[in-house]
Amino acid sequence: MTEKSQENTVLIGTKPVMNYVVACMTYFNAGSNNVILKARGRATSLAVDVVEVLRRSFIKDLEIKKINIGTEELKRYEGQTANVSTLEIVISKPK
Amino acid sequence: MTEKSQENTVLIGTKPVMNYVVACMTYFNAGSNNVILKARGRATSLAVDVVEVLRRSFIKDLEIKKINIGTEELKRYEGQTANVSTLEIVISKPK
Repeated sequence: MTEKSQENTVLIGTKPVMNYVVACMTYFNAGSNNVILKARGRATSLAVDVVEVLRRSFIKDLEIKKINIGTEELKRYEGQTANVSTLEIVISKPK
Repeated sequence: MTEKSQENTVLIGTKPVMNYVVACMTYFNAGSNNVILKARGRATSLAVDVVEVLRRSFIKDLEIKKINIGTEELKRYEGQTANVSTLEIVISKPK
């Protein structure tokens, strides 16, 4: 987790791919250089989809700066914990 | 796709996580330095799980050498094509 992680972060959930693609485009059009995509569990495959749609259809020279994987601990109802995998992709649009 | 991609490759599908963890351990125990995990579509989140289980429970100093994402074209029945996202993780066990 970097210091910049609060800005330009798109959290990938259960919405359609295009929602997240539009969110990234909005950040880039507002002048951001980097956008960070964060996903957990099954949504990780969606994060990859978002980057691929962006690269293939919207920003041809999109750069994938970094891909991190990790584990997060989720607290369940009765104090149980579950481990869930996380994926973080940093993408960048050259000026 | 590198030249070495044929060796030490574990294709992630729909089996339980531990099957793939064991497959990786088998490669490492046979003397391999690198193991390549490949997954498509929804299995990509499973690939991340496999790496995290390996790192947390089996090989503490596991190194993630490279993570690649991409798109593959699948042929459907009537000549239609579908794009599917791919994830490739290269992991390495220090000697």
